[in-house]
Amino acid sequence: MMNRDVADLPSGPLDVYRNKASFSWKDMVRFIDGEDVYLFKQHVFRTLENDPLFARQPGEDVPIEKKRELTFLRMKQLLRYNFVTKEEAMANPWKAMYLDDCLGMYDWALVAKLFLSLGMFGATVANSGSSRHKKFVENTEDMRIFGCFALTELSHGSNTRAMRTTAKYDPSTQEFVINSPDFEAAKFWVGNLGKTATHAVVYAQLYTPDQVCHGLHSFVVPLRDPKTLLALPGVLVGDMGKKLGQNGLDNGFVMFHNVRIPRENLLNKTGDLTPDGRYVTPFKDPKKRFGASLGALSGGRVYITRMALINLKLALTVAIRFSAARRQFGPTDTEEIPVLEYQLQQWRLIPYLAAAYALDNFTKSIIMNFVEFQIGQMLKDNSDTAGMGREIHAIGCSSKPLGSWTAQRGIQECREACGGHGYLAMNRLGDLRDDNDPNCTYEGDNNVLLQQTSSYLLSWLHAKQRDGVRIESPFHTVDFLEESQEILKSRFTALTVDDCVDSAVPLAAYKWLVCFLLEESQKKLEQERASGNNDFEARNNCQVYYCRSLALAYIEHTCLQRFHELTTNQDTPAGLRPVLRKLCALYGLWSLSSHMATLYQGNYWSGRKPAELVQMAILTLCSQLKDDAVALVDVLAPTDFILNSPIGCADGQIYNHLWSTVMQGSKVLERPSWWKEFCSDKPVLGSLRPKL
Amino acid sequence: MMNRDVADLPSGPLDVYRNKASFSWKDMVRFIDGEDVYLFKQHVFRTLENDPLFARQPGEDVPIEKKRELTFLRMKQLLRYNFVTKEEAMANPWKAMYLDDCLGMYDWALVAKLFLSLGMFGATVANSGSSRHKKFVENTEDMRIFGCFALTELSHGSNTRAMRTTAKYDPSTQEFVINSPDFEAAKFWVGNLGKTATHAVVYAQLYTPDQVCHGLHSFVVPLRDPKTLLALPGVLVGDMGKKLGQNGLDNGFVMFHNVRIPRENLLNKTGDLTPDGRYVTPFKDPKKRFGASLGALSGGRVYITRMALINLKLALTVAIRFSAARRQFGPTDTEEIPVLEYQLQQWRLIPYLAAAYALDNFTKSIIMNFVEFQIGQMLKDNSDTAGMGREIHAIGCSSKPLGSWTAQRGIQECREACGGHGYLAMNRLGDLRDDNDPNCTYEGDNNVLLQQTSSYLLSWLHAKQRDGVRIESPFHTVDFLEESQEILKSRFTALTVDDCVDSAVPLAAYKWLVCFLLEESQKKLEQERASGNNDFEARNNCQVYYCRSLALAYIEHTCLQRFHELTTNQDTPAGLRPVLRKLCALYGLWSLSSHMATLYQGNYWSGRKPAELVQMAILTLCSQLKDDAVALVDVLAPTDFILNSPIGCADGQIYNHLWSTVMQGSKVLERPSWWKEFCSDKPVLGSLRPKL
Repeated sequence: MMNRDVADLPSGPLDVYRNKASFSWKDMVRFIDGEDVYLFKQHVFRTLENDPLFARQPGEDVPIEKKRELTFLRMKQLLRYNFVTKEEAMANPWKAMYLDDCLGMYDWALVAKLFLSLGMFGATVANSGSSRHKKFVENTEDMRIFGCFALTELSHGSNTRAMRTTAKYDPSTQEFVINSPDFEAAKFWVGNLGKTATHAVVYAQLYTPDQVCHGLHSFVVPLRDPKTLLALPGVLVGDMGKKLGQNGLDNGFVMFHNVRIPRENLLNKTGDLTPDGRYVTPFKDPKKRFGASLGALSGGRVYITRMALINLKLALTVAIRFSAARRQFGPTDTEEIPVLEYQLQQWRLIPYLAAAYALDNFTKSIIMNFVEFQIGQMLKDNSDTAGMGREIHAIGCSSKPLGSWTAQRGIQECREACGGHGYLAMNRLGDLRDDNDPNCTYEGDNNVLLQQTSSYLLSWLHAKQRDGVRIESPFHTVDFLEESQEILKSRFTALTVDDCVDSAVPLAAYKWLVCFLLEESQKKLEQERASGNNDFEARNNCQVYYCRSLALAYIEHTCLQRFHELTTNQDTPAGLRPVLRKLCALYGLWSLSSHMATLYQGNYWSGRKPAELVQMAILTLCSQLKDDAVALVDVLAPTDFILNSPIGCADGQIYNHLWSTVMQGSKVLERPSWWKEFCSDKPVLGSLRPKL
Repeated sequence: MMNRDVADLPSGPLDVYRNKASFSWKDMVRFIDGEDVYLFKQHVFRTLENDPLFARQPGEDVPIEKKRELTFLRMKQLLRYNFVTKEEAMANPWKAMYLDDCLGMYDWALVAKLFLSLGMFGATVANSGSSRHKKFVENTEDMRIFGCFALTELSHGSNTRAMRTTAKYDPSTQEFVINSPDFEAAKFWVGNLGKTATHAVVYAQLYTPDQVCHGLHSFVVPLRDPKTLLALPGVLVGDMGKKLGQNGLDNGFVMFHNVRIPRENLLNKTGDLTPDGRYVTPFKDPKKRFGASLGALSGGRVYITRMALINLKLALTVAIRFSAARRQFGPTDTEEIPVLEYQLQQWRLIPYLAAAYALDNFTKSIIMNFVEFQIGQMLKDNSDTAGMGREIHAIGCSSKPLGSWTAQRGIQECREACGGHGYLAMNRLGDLRDDNDPNCTYEGDNNVLLQQTSSYLLSWLHAKQRDGVRIESPFHTVDFLEESQEILKSRFTALTVDDCVDSAVPLAAYKWLVCFLLEESQKKLEQERASGNNDFEARNNCQVYYCRSLALAYIEHTCLQRFHELTTNQDTPAGLRPVLRKLCALYGLWSLSSHMATLYQGNYWSGRKPAELVQMAILTLCSQLKDDAVALVDVLAPTDFILNSPIGCADGQIYNHLWSTVMQGSKVLERPSWWKEFCSDKPVLGSLRPKL
């Protein structure tokens, strides 16, 4: 009976692999997402497919102006569909995530456009403001106004505290006067600001009439007249132009010249002004105030990890289906075999497939951690919300780099693994790469963020050493550090490839690795300080090979640990456990292989055997998984309409779809409009060459 | 006096670094390129800048049809400029290379368009044909016809021998009849074919009237009427659509339905037909015939290595100038320092800068090797042209992967290192990445090509072991293998970081590494064969971790060896040697660091010290080179007009140029044409939600 709910996939060249799969892909769908989620996703996919507004042609050349218009129209349509109501989202927070997954598979710019006004603008106003700002939130919800979030300036990104926009209070009119001191302080990169935002949350330095600066605060500033979309006086607002990807989203800039806003537009949760211009705040320490006003941003990084994963899933679907259908060379001149049969192709793609499964589990688990943290904050119960906040911050600051880099490299590998056809825009690997790329940058540059995570880990070690604190955190990602001394004594013990084909092996190695890098980082930091460097210099000089590696090893360990738990859990269906365990072992060994030098360096490994065993185990697992690879992407893949890649279709008819898409191209068989430029006006060789 | 020739760069925020440089960038320009080349390049750059046809706006959104038109018009204009005449190119082969460098810095699609007709079509006809084909070559030169090179089919790329297009001879009319058996055999990916080619060199299986297939041959096939650009009867020809990059080039497809061409259009160097349909050939072995007809393609791979390097140079110019001008954070709240001062930023960028210098020297040296090989072929003198051919093939098959991957990763790192501004299309890092990407794929997939190189190396070892042949090759890239047994006994001996800051250290390690991987690959291959696998399987199962690593280590060694020779040569100016030696040591150590596990595995390294020393040496060199970094890119950079990246301008005024480019954008301050879509027609939340 249940079988009827997950629909069969069309028959074709991929059947041979599907028939060889060691597990039921439908069971996997039910296990990973559950039946309700599967049906919900199919409903969203079909709805978009059936709505002509969402129609698109693979690889079509759409001008940016048109992309932005389409994204806006589609966004409005999504409000009409309202796939997940507020009430549903409250009752089931997963549903909102799955909706974003579905829409992101279609186009991330669309998700961003919707989120930036309702989520980023609306939620910031709701969380940082007070009852007097309620009307802005309500007006956003029915689109009377359209919002954006304006923090970054042209010359400042990561260093948020250095923003230079000013908000000076004028008690005579009870208004703030907003100014950009110069164009380098123009707000820049703001999503929705290019074409559509009518209002912004603007971060500016607040000055009281006594010329005292009270630091960065947020204000609601009207930018464009909602009746006409024309800019208001004093507001120079515009579009930043083309980006590498996500061009459906209109990023923009704004400069303020004596723009006056009512005193009430200050979002006053962390500080307020009396009508006569006195500053009042519940916080004493301005650093804490700043922390509180920016603290809510951790959820973004956690979800970006998942966005990157979604991109990787799509790219893998394309590359693995293509590799299973594409034949090239063979043992004899007349017989060609699928390129997926080659060890090299397996090694290029299947570890990323394992990573996708690991990250699917991991991103869900950290989103759950974040939700727990939020609930703790709302309930203000006895749970350790401060500890949760610090830990989720450390997780998000490293999970985003892990996810976005894995996806970026994986998509590039998929592109190359599809050869020339991967370079055709219609097959979407370019768009996936370009749309994923900013995940490495926004909400904090990956390399800069990793420093937050290593600081978190170092602070635990410090607390233990100084105060004898027991290392134990709300989400348990650091608990094993309590056994650091024993772990550091452990050594690699596997003797055969069979021993290694088990996620327990890389997991144990990772525990050692994190402990080792933590200790080394601390030593290095002390050494730097002892040599007379100030704290700023000392930290900077410990990043490469120490703190940065530490943060990455920590998050890879956490991801592996949680996947290991899933694959060994008795609640995981017995029919799925074998393939999941292989994926888990492969993910662990493959990730670990980027740290092999450190394992040798710290003497966890010695001699020829360990590296050789791990390498052979990786190849063994790739080879064992190659017959499952197609079924494994069937689980992750959206419908063909959403995937929008001729060589990635579920029926595996790569050439039919490619050819028919080429033939559907605009003016494909027509001679160019400029044909006379060839037929007449022939160039005379050297006619413009200067006579020297 | 000489100083006057290399022009000063404009003053600005980069002065502080330029003043700190340890060497004269003008001396470096004179050393690397020479004064004549510098002047020639400036002449080309200025000519393009002064010609309105070459004007462009950074980041502008140009439709593909327009891009193709512009590229065509510019190509015609280049013929009029004729920067390097045929006679000049014969007298000085370097000049043609430098011209392509200059034009590629402007746009590779333009170079490709010109090259595919004149070089690829014209030269193939000239080399594979005979006197009866002279008219095609001449007609190409004055653009009466326009050519392309049609080998690849929709379902076959790497496996060239499996092409399925047929050419059947009809003695009754003395014509060949060209057919595509089905659309999977359509010629596909052919550059110039989309919009402009009137003639193609088509590779097809030749059948004589007795139904015997004589294998793949090339034919000149007319496709479009040169008077109208309309397709000829039986020819279904069109445009493949958008690619990830290089969209100025019109790649296309063609299907043939009983297209008749005269018997004389067979390019008959390797085989011909008598009028009555008898096949005659100077070759006995069809495999050799095939090899001869495709053999001339090695030069392409060698030059692609340089194309990739040129892309890397441009990206580094952008990223390093940006990093020197961009300030973020600092030791105190009020003082911000250039991001280039951070160890992490140095480590991300400066090794790629070292790689660019290593590859500049290396690409010139292998192009010289190729020219030597060509001269040897022409002169038919006593030189070992067969040996040269095999070696240049092994070099090209690995230098292309080395160059294209180094550039691809380096450009991505540059993109990320410039943060959000790197994601703006106007700053060109996206285009550089996208235009570089196909270098990994065309003229052979990188991973597939590497197998050619490892086979070459294995064949030397085999010849030595079986026949006692002395290992010595015309270009000396394998000579050191003769001392393999002694080299394999050597160990890492450096004791301090100072010891390591010397390219002799990684060079010695690389020699060991290549010998080790060669021996291991051979063992692995024997083991695979002994276990009952056929040759095809055995080879496939030795790629990952063995043959692939071997080929990469070999080419990295060759590149390092030649750079090491340059930097230690007494003819290299003394004032430049120190900085070049640092670059060489950094390149060597940094490349080597991707093989650290193997060094430990084979016991060349043991204990903690070696990896630590190499890592510390890399960081030391990065830090020593950071004050030279701006001057080092000044040497590589083209003019601002050619670079076309606001954050990469020579004056370092990153924000001024960025801002003014934004303000020059199309309709930047205008409200969108679709503004009423916001102001009216507001969506009603959930109005399209199905009532369940």
